[in-house]
Amino acid sequence: MHAVYYELIKECSRSGARLGKLHTPHGTFDTPMFMPVGTQATVKTLSPEELYEMKAQVILANTYHLFLRPGEDIVKKAGGLHKFMNYRNGMLTDSGGFQVFSLGAMRKIEEEGVTFRSHIDGSKRFLNPEVATKVQEDLGADIIMAFDECIPYPADFAYAKTSTERTTRWAQRCLKAKKREDQGLFGIVQGGMYPDLRKYSADSLTSMDFAGYGIGGLSVGEPHELMYDVLAQTTCHLPKDKARYLMGVGTPDCLVEGVNLGVDMFDCVFPTRVARNGTAMLPTGRLVVRNAAYAEDFLPIDENCGCYTCRNFSRAYIRHLFKAEEIFALRLLTIHNLHFLLKFSQDMRTAIAEDRFPEFRENFLEHYQR
Amino acid sequence: MHAVYYELIKECSRSGARLGKLHTPHGTFDTPMFMPVGTQATVKTLSPEELYEMKAQVILANTYHLFLRPGEDIVKKAGGLHKFMNYRNGMLTDSGGFQVFSLGAMRKIEEEGVTFRSHIDGSKRFLNPEVATKVQEDLGADIIMAFDECIPYPADFAYAKTSTERTTRWAQRCLKAKKREDQGLFGIVQGGMYPDLRKYSADSLTSMDFAGYGIGGLSVGEPHELMYDVLAQTTCHLPKDKARYLMGVGTPDCLVEGVNLGVDMFDCVFPTRVARNGTAMLPTGRLVVRNAAYAEDFLPIDENCGCYTCRNFSRAYIRHLFKAEEIFALRLLTIHNLHFLLKFSQDMRTAIAEDRFPEFRENFLEHYQR
Repeated sequence: MHAVYYELIKECSRSGARLGKLHTPHGTFDTPMFMPVGTQATVKTLSPEELYEMKAQVILANTYHLFLRPGEDIVKKAGGLHKFMNYRNGMLTDSGGFQVFSLGAMRKIEEEGVTFRSHIDGSKRFLNPEVATKVQEDLGADIIMAFDECIPYPADFAYAKTSTERTTRWAQRCLKAKKREDQGLFGIVQGGMYPDLRKYSADSLTSMDFAGYGIGGLSVGEPHELMYDVLAQTTCHLPKDKARYLMGVGTPDCLVEGVNLGVDMFDCVFPTRVARNGTAMLPTGRLVVRNAAYAEDFLPIDENCGCYTCRNFSRAYIRHLFKAEEIFALRLLTIHNLHFLLKFSQDMRTAIAEDRFPEFRENFLEHYQR
Repeated sequence: MHAVYYELIKECSRSGARLGKLHTPHGTFDTPMFMPVGTQATVKTLSPEELYEMKAQVILANTYHLFLRPGEDIVKKAGGLHKFMNYRNGMLTDSGGFQVFSLGAMRKIEEEGVTFRSHIDGSKRFLNPEVATKVQEDLGADIIMAFDECIPYPADFAYAKTSTERTTRWAQRCLKAKKREDQGLFGIVQGGMYPDLRKYSADSLTSMDFAGYGIGGLSVGEPHELMYDVLAQTTCHLPKDKARYLMGVGTPDCLVEGVNLGVDMFDCVFPTRVARNGTAMLPTGRLVVRNAAYAEDFLPIDENCGCYTCRNFSRAYIRHLFKAEEIFALRLLTIHNLHFLLKFSQDMRTAIAEDRFPEFRENFLEHYQR
């Protein structure tokens, strides 16, 4: 038994949606779930207590960022990420692969690993499966991710094939490098937009002993319909008894479609990033609270929302705070947007439990404006 | 009886320190007290709940800023400042005088009032005793301040005299303009660094019917010893049955000296401003948490402090957040610094109640490094 494992509770008979539980050393969490992103060991603007109040379960931190600053040695000395940032629920670290590959001209990929320049001070650094695994063991999250290459979109078949095969070899090296028994290592399925490569990647990774599976390389600029197609042709090759984590996806329409295709976990900076830009997420789309239309609007962001922000503050006040460049504004919308996605995930779970997920999905998509 | 009034509970027999209660429509608060500053209708980075947890009593908001943005009409429509920002304890607005006079070349002072240009959009605006009072009635704080001129330091006697006499005439106009019965209007004693003018100002204002007295024009660049001298020569002319508010003062050494000379209320942006710059306030002085010395220091900011920040986070973590430019860092030190000054005020009150304020003061000053 892995330290982290998935328990399938119920499958929807009319869709791919599944209800489950993710068991970790820091608790058991309900899936499908959205995971707030705390890149630098903090979910921007929020306290742990605010995350508990909105019923956050697993949150993310970023290996690339923490490797560079403050350094995994300091986090290890602090007793690991949970103690360092004082968060008691589940934690997941990505492998740093995505960030390193996003550096473009500043990095060089070889079989051994990736040499890159730090975005902070330009210093030369190196990550590979062994280093990324060791760093994640020092950081000490419950779930750690294999070091992979995220294939850009578009990419030709030859590039995608070479990269996907390397990601498979790297995944094997991560498994071999892993020493800690109290963490669960997830492999990451790649394959670009090519169904054959997705099948190859899924088959080869599922033949190894991972605690769960990330689905990487989606939501990287391709049309939504293509993403859903490729996703469908990926989840169908994944085992039912392992969690499936669609990486970097965090709008409600993508969540509901992902769940429809059998995804259990999601993460994205979208809700927190647009919050800091003055945009609130609604079941029907978005509300740009900076707009002059809200200057004298004393209603909450969403009258039907139960979040701290909507229980206590008006659109007019939040707009004022944004116009006045007050930090509390960023916090109030961050709370609202994360609460929205967490509640939305809970609503999806309830719908699956009550055998009405297809209707839930249809009703949501009918009213939502992307 | 005023809507806002001071109740003297106890006088120290060996100093000017006094224990009291300030009664307001939003509750009765203990003095001596420090009042956190929420310039733009938000104490920067904090929620109302965080202010309650640190036992904040009265907080400030700024007439100049709110007059310009969002405009007092919007705050009035929201139901006043308390409702707009969702704060349930006491509130005080300054008159805007200090900010307007700080604009320097961008304003013109005449007997009728002050014409100035907005720092936001450069538009021409006007404030005088009648407008400032009306704006403060629309904002709806418990305590409102007379529109005064803050005399710069240094200033010659002739300028100080002319200005102080005008401040007196303006105070009379504020009293006359005041309509709301549920707010307390404080006069502001000016007089520059001239004891004769301070006496004139105090005598003329105390002959009018104010709910309390601000002491303005101190801590404007003069040496500390001069400030204490002038303060002593001001409080001695103020009645015992009215609150005395030393405006713009907020370091613990100035607080303890102010209390020693009979002051009941203080406010300052210092604790919140230095917090956002990475400086924590300690009973012995300051700790610059950004310093490399704290990179692997897993102690709290102050082991003896009971604030949220010190109960939950280490110097190493807070330093990391500052280095990574994370907003949560600003919030954590703001909480610590305000908690420190509020607790310090509470400790002064206890010392007065227990007849040991002079020893408290001596002990504090012995260990404190400015």
